[in-house]
Amino acid sequence: MQDIEVSFSEKPVLNDPIFIEGLPGVGNVGKLAAEHLIEQLNATKFADIISKYFPPQVIVNDEGVIRLVSNELYYVKREGRSNDIVFLVGDYQGVTPEGQYMLSDRVLTIVKELGVNRIFTLGGYGIGKMVEKPRVLGAATDAALVDEMKNLGVVFSKGEPGSGIVGASGLLLGLGKLYGMQSVCLMGETSGYFVDPRAAEVVLEVLVKELDVQIDYEALRRKAQQIDRITERLKDMETQQAPDTPGGRREDLGYIG
Amino acid sequence: MQDIEVSFSEKPVLNDPIFIEGLPGVGNVGKLAAEHLIEQLNATKFADIISKYFPPQVIVNDEGVIRLVSNELYYVKREGRSNDIVFLVGDYQGVTPEGQYMLSDRVLTIVKELGVNRIFTLGGYGIGKMVEKPRVLGAATDAALVDEMKNLGVVFSKGEPGSGIVGASGLLLGLGKLYGMQSVCLMGETSGYFVDPRAAEVVLEVLVKELDVQIDYEALRRKAQQIDRITERLKDMETQQAPDTPGGRREDLGYIG
Amino acid sequence: MQDIEVSFSEKPVLNDPIFIEGLPGVGNVGKLAAEHLIEQLNATKFADIISKYFPPQVIVNDEGVIRLVSNELYYVKREGRSNDIVFLVGDYQGVTPEGQYMLSDRVLTIVKELGVNRIFTLGGYGIGKMVEKPRVLGAATDAALVDEMKNLGVVFSKGEPGSGIVGASGLLLGLGKLYGMQSVCLMGETSGYFVDPRAAEVVLEVLVKELDVQIDYEALRRKAQQIDRITERLKDMETQQAPDTPGGRREDLGYIG
Amino acid sequence: MQDIEVSFSEKPVLNDPIFIEGLPGVGNVGKLAAEHLIEQLNATKFADIISKYFPPQVIVNDEGVIRLVSNELYYVKREGRSNDIVFLVGDYQGVTPEGQYMLSDRVLTIVKELGVNRIFTLGGYGIGKMVEKPRVLGAATDAALVDEMKNLGVVFSKGEPGSGIVGASGLLLGLGKLYGMQSVCLMGETSGYFVDPRAAEVVLEVLVKELDVQIDYEALRRKAQQIDRITERLKDMETQQAPDTPGGRREDLGYIG
Repeated sequence: MQDIEVSFSEKPVLNDPIFIEGLPGVGNVGKLAAEHLIEQLNATKFADIISKYFPPQVIVNDEGVIRLVSNELYYVKREGRSNDIVFLVGDYQGVTPEGQYMLSDRVLTIVKELGVNRIFTLGGYGIGKMVEKPRVLGAATDAALVDEMKNLGVVFSKGEPGSGIVGASGLLLGLGKLYGMQSVCLMGETSGYFVDPRAAEVVLEVLVKELDVQIDYEALRRKAQQIDRITERLKDMETQQAPDTPGGRREDLGYIG
Repeated sequence: MQDIEVSFSEKPVLNDPIFIEGLPGVGNVGKLAAEHLIEQLNATKFADIISKYFPPQVIVNDEGVIRLVSNELYYVKREGRSNDIVFLVGDYQGVTPEGQYMLSDRVLTIVKELGVNRIFTLGGYGIGKMVEKPRVLGAATDAALVDEMKNLGVVFSKGEPGSGIVGASGLLLGLGKLYGMQSVCLMGETSGYFVDPRAAEVVLEVLVKELDVQIDYEALRRKAQQIDRITERLKDMETQQAPDTPGGRREDLGYIG
Repeated sequence: MQDIEVSFSEKPVLNDPIFIEGLPGVGNVGKLAAEHLIEQLNATKFADIISKYFPPQVIVNDEGVIRLVSNELYYVKREGRSNDIVFLVGDYQGVTPEGQYMLSDRVLTIVKELGVNRIFTLGGYGIGKMVEKPRVLGAATDAALVDEMKNLGVVFSKGEPGSGIVGASGLLLGLGKLYGMQSVCLMGETSGYFVDPRAAEVVLEVLVKELDVQIDYEALRRKAQQIDRITERLKDMETQQAPDTPGGRREDLGYIG
Repeated sequence: MQDIEVSFSEKPVLNDPIFIEGLPGVGNVGKLAAEHLIEQLNATKFADIISKYFPPQVIVNDEGVIRLVSNELYYVKREGRSNDIVFLVGDYQGVTPEGQYMLSDRVLTIVKELGVNRIFTLGGYGIGKMVEKPRVLGAATDAALVDEMKNLGVVFSKGEPGSGIVGASGLLLGLGKLYGMQSVCLMGETSGYFVDPRAAEVVLEVLVKELDVQIDYEALRRKAQQIDRITERLKDMETQQAPDTPGGRREDLGYIG
């Protein structure tokens, strides 16, 4: 096998497509948002990516049938709109720094060929505490794009995120710039302790304005309520435990979902 | 040396062979099962695999003679049966994700050439507690195979294994699918704390039906009794220790065998 | 992308240039010193280095605009002086040993082509406690150079640094020797707990003699006072905490700046 | 630079040379033994090995002069004896499993060319407690060699070392076998907590019989006494400490020397 193997089921011809990335990350915000949009827009899968840079693992579905961990590309053609859309979602990001660079670079060569000029990467911005009204923070490849995003309600806050953007959501922006692509990262504020469908919703609220679509948030909201119920139960269990139980509780929750 | 070096002592000509993998893993279930079957069927070694993806180590036998850590391929020809068999066993799996992918892929090119169309990977399914009557869980490359395995008593349980299958037992399935091979992973339930010959036995009880052979389980059962004696002793030591001994005991047992 | 990608905005023609490295490291001493000197001498950036050996990350500036983590090369031409200067600064060193070797070797091929014969690498020497009057310790590629540096006040102390010099500051010396370059590492003593502009200043005090320039230290001193204020506050917080708070405080400070 | 760079200062022509490896490892037994023998036999360095597989580091000598971490090859020609000798010593072993394999394989191609047919790798066998009269354990590439070594007093003990031999001392044997070389690993028993010149001495006592030389052990014995004095002091400090000091003491000593 090659280091990165892309198998196309179709090579779509697209109209000035916008590229949207939503791989797993902080609070799985980007993944939730992108997968929800794929469902709502009824997008079509056209490529599978497997790689030695992913974990050596297969996923088992509810029927007991396996598939290799992978990243997937989807597209949606939109009559009467100025841009079609390409999506990248998947099970994992690259395991090593090298893998991250190689995978992002490969994806960029593919979407470049499809005619992509604009990228939105979606992610969570972990702030380490529960947040009532999550903001959507942004970062972009140039100042004009920053202004454009401000008009959509995206917050650009000096010193946030202080440590930069790590992983595919960052690299696709940074490397995308070298490919001449205008790129924005949209980050929904999240505690970072749980999978966070609410943060995914606020990210989507920005993105749909840019894409000029209307979507239903029902499924995301049901997921949010599910998470709420689990965290409530865990909080109850916590208060019932001996007070000297050494920490770790909050961290444990991080693995839910 | 090459990244992966395969030295053949023989290139067997085989009749529609089934490929069985049993490398070290959870409870060493797969390794125990495959090695037991090799012994019972009197299989013949025909290739050694060494690689920079394995640990940098030699094994010393009881006479003081060394050999590099390796994986090994065996075959057994079976008159009057519809399938010959090829086995993969060894000291270690690949150390890194990349190594795992490269090694599984290389093995598949070899067994493809031998005419393999069907793979069984053997492993343990760690459930974190002692288990009276271990089930054999399954996962497969397609739905028809799932049904076929159900008829042999294999359990396909929604959400198990939730985290997918990691390592060679998963990759050979996932990559094997790309090589057009029908593949099944058989996982014997095990605590995961010890080497578990009992879980190996239940896995073999399924496999022998598929292979249409009869084997003797005596050697496996003796090993199981040995492990029982060790764990009993450890339990005794445990109860004799000061009650404030900080945990870790159960983990320690995990390294036995 | 290539493993290491260097993009030149200019290929300067230089007069017997001296090469100065100041990448992040212990107390960020080398980085602070080199960046201060770049500012004071008004050096010009002429190349960007990006690489899969760096962390997979983008930096976000105060306006919300991103750039890939990188290393950068600067030069300064100096009329009437015998040596021009080339600088290497950046966000990170290579993540893996292999990356460190590959990056240092690549930089050396670039500066060799620019005519560099002499290298100064700048760093901190962590001694694990606060230091009133930091010394500048040295290491060099040959004995004559050691003597020359002693005349500038550099301390060569038997057994310091006992563990050798790790990272780019060491490798550029060691590999540079193979390129026929005379090289010196200047290490300012520092606690190693904080970013240390005072250690950067003492390193620069030596270097300016070698370079025959005069610079202003005001900006470095302001940074030093800032750090002092933060550490004072932290010390106050520490004394107010329950005395049985388990350690970690001092380590935390290490990440400031 | 290449992945592994070997620079020869000389290409010696040797008479049926024996190859002896003594790189850092458990108790630094192999390194101490090989370096002592190099000194006693007044061997000549003929090659330097640097590599991206080593740590990215330079060593600073007492005069402040640096050199890259490396491995080194020495030879000694012996009039009237049936075998000349080649030595491998150095600062580090390869950092990663891949590095270990690549470095050992490269060294074997070099010594093969020099005519080597027999290898002795030297190391320590850590037993986790102080040992009065250290044995020399062995492992070899074939049974005849095991018998030959038994005659020199080497102990071949079933199940020791149970976990095999890790690192260069193992790989040179295992890979050497593929190069058709007869190889032995000699392991001096050591606590594994300290650098152990006494274990190095017992290893040498076996090796000198094989090499038919006489050497002086004075320098090794002085080092052993130095270590004894340090461990005595540490034991004193230990008994003076509060009894509830949590462990770690013994581990700390492991890093001495």
